[in-house]
Amino acid sequence: MVSTPAVLGLDFGGTKIAVAVADLSGRRLGATTLESRAGSGAGEAMSRCLTAARELLAEVAPDHELAGVGAATLGIPYDDRVELAPTFPGWGELPFGRLIREAFPDVPVRLATDVKAAAEAELRWGALTGCDPGLYVNLGTGLAVAIVAGGTVITGAHGASGEIGYNLRSTADVYVDGDRRTILEHVVSGQALETTGTARLGRPVTAADVFTMARTDPAAAVLTDEFVRELAAHLANLAIALDPSRIVVGGGLVRSWDQLEPGLRRALDAAVPFPPELSVARFPTDAPLIGALALGVEAAGVDLGAEAFA
Amino acid sequence: MVSTPAVLGLDFGGTKIAVAVADLSGRRLGATTLESRAGSGAGEAMSRCLTAARELLAEVAPDHELAGVGAATLGIPYDDRVELAPTFPGWGELPFGRLIREAFPDVPVRLATDVKAAAEAELRWGALTGCDPGLYVNLGTGLAVAIVAGGTVITGAHGASGEIGYNLRSTADVYVDGDRRTILEHVVSGQALETTGTARLGRPVTAADVFTMARTDPAAAVLTDEFVRELAAHLANLAIALDPSRIVVGGGLVRSWDQLEPGLRRALDAAVPFPPELSVARFPTDAPLIGALALGVEAAGVDLGAEAFA
Repeated sequence: MVSTPAVLGLDFGGTKIAVAVADLSGRRLGATTLESRAGSGAGEAMSRCLTAARELLAEVAPDHELAGVGAATLGIPYDDRVELAPTFPGWGELPFGRLIREAFPDVPVRLATDVKAAAEAELRWGALTGCDPGLYVNLGTGLAVAIVAGGTVITGAHGASGEIGYNLRSTADVYVDGDRRTILEHVVSGQALETTGTARLGRPVTAADVFTMARTDPAAAVLTDEFVRELAAHLANLAIALDPSRIVVGGGLVRSWDQLEPGLRRALDAAVPFPPELSVARFPTDAPLIGALALGVEAAGVDLGAEAFA
Repeated sequence: MVSTPAVLGLDFGGTKIAVAVADLSGRRLGATTLESRAGSGAGEAMSRCLTAARELLAEVAPDHELAGVGAATLGIPYDDRVELAPTFPGWGELPFGRLIREAFPDVPVRLATDVKAAAEAELRWGALTGCDPGLYVNLGTGLAVAIVAGGTVITGAHGASGEIGYNLRSTADVYVDGDRRTILEHVVSGQALETTGTARLGRPVTAADVFTMARTDPAAAVLTDEFVRELAAHLANLAIALDPSRIVVGGGLVRSWDQLEPGLRRALDAAVPFPPELSVARFPTDAPLIGALALGVEAAGVDLGAEAFA
């Protein structure tokens, strides 16, 4: 008896860990979500995730053979560590890839940053299909992009392409180390808008609250105007450098897309010689998990491209 | 009798037009240079170039069969026009690709911007070999870059990738049309340094003069410091977005490399999570012509990669 193949996708975020099982066409067989509980430690979070993954596989795919695993994470994953993940205590020292490989011996595993996995999902099954080049922008707790060219997501020489959260904000930042300047992500991200909003609007607010208040409250509107202007400056320069056919925006902040889109559209039209299309991602909030499944299918050695996704 | 194949490379610049003939391994058989004489019109310049190319072929490769033509130009070349070439009167309306194809019927032709052709030369035979990604920076009369990834030069959706001369310089530039703001190239380029230097140093100077004066003259040093700082800001942000293994700088201003390199190096080390290598191009001044030859070899359908170049 030959068993049907299945793939496992894992997405490690700062607040939740998502797990899904799909068939090779990307059709989801089941999914579950865990709290990250960063305070309990990185090893504990990974351990709970792997247990949940095994349980999910036993529940929704008992007769399937696990053919590939894709894992997305905040930070930049390697087999023996995770770089640029300072917000999750202990995550940097976690032997990320190795633990996953050990949990599923003899199963091929692919790793990616959460944003690159999201871009993979959009490239294979979403809003970046056929875009060459294309740009994926993640507006979530943090800020990062992924560049798509030649039908693939550009990884970078050290897996660190797209980390524009570290961008310089002006020429005054030149020659100043990253930990002694205000990097772009400290001003343009969900976390930044929440912090600034809470400080300047007189009560605790989320980033979504600030956008909602901006419809009627001039003080909040100043914050969102500054936010969109600075984001637009960096996206415009990236679009000039890349000449993408389309920019696709995902992440939690796209819930306020009606307030993001007009400014970004106007800025791109004014700045870029050949202004790209601009749209919301097809998978605005769970793209990293879907991308992890796509990585799992890739790991299984299956040629992607079929539109079986739902 | 089977004739030996040869390729033709053409490089159209604002002040000179370079023509070269090579064999399929890139070995140069002969070359010649013409003045562009932009004032005499685009059609006249193209016509003189094609005549010179035919004469050169007859002189240095009389027994060869022309197997491919590569053409690099300022602006972005298409068969029926050249975009973004405002400094050469009439160049925009010139049916660039068509005129070259008509001059050499039945010979395959490849077109590229001068900077992308230069990057092609560095990727195939120069300082970007094996870099994935890599970044080529052209510091000449103007300013542009070319992004290398996956073993190829990224063209962009409209052939316009790398045109960072149009970059916004600050958030104050957001929403302002390109012709009503000071674009980056108007501040960071050979032409810009010549103009600013002449205005602020009290006598007509070239960009190279300004760098030479900066060794002893504080007023000139202020200009070059500002120049390097602003260039560094944009290269740092590009390096953060791309995570290249190496940045390679070509163009006429690299004659002042000893004054450019320290500031750029320091800025990249401070800003970029994984700082890339930084070096002068292998072909700092004639890379577009060599790139045109590489395009000619590609057009001829020959797999490149051999280190036959000299």
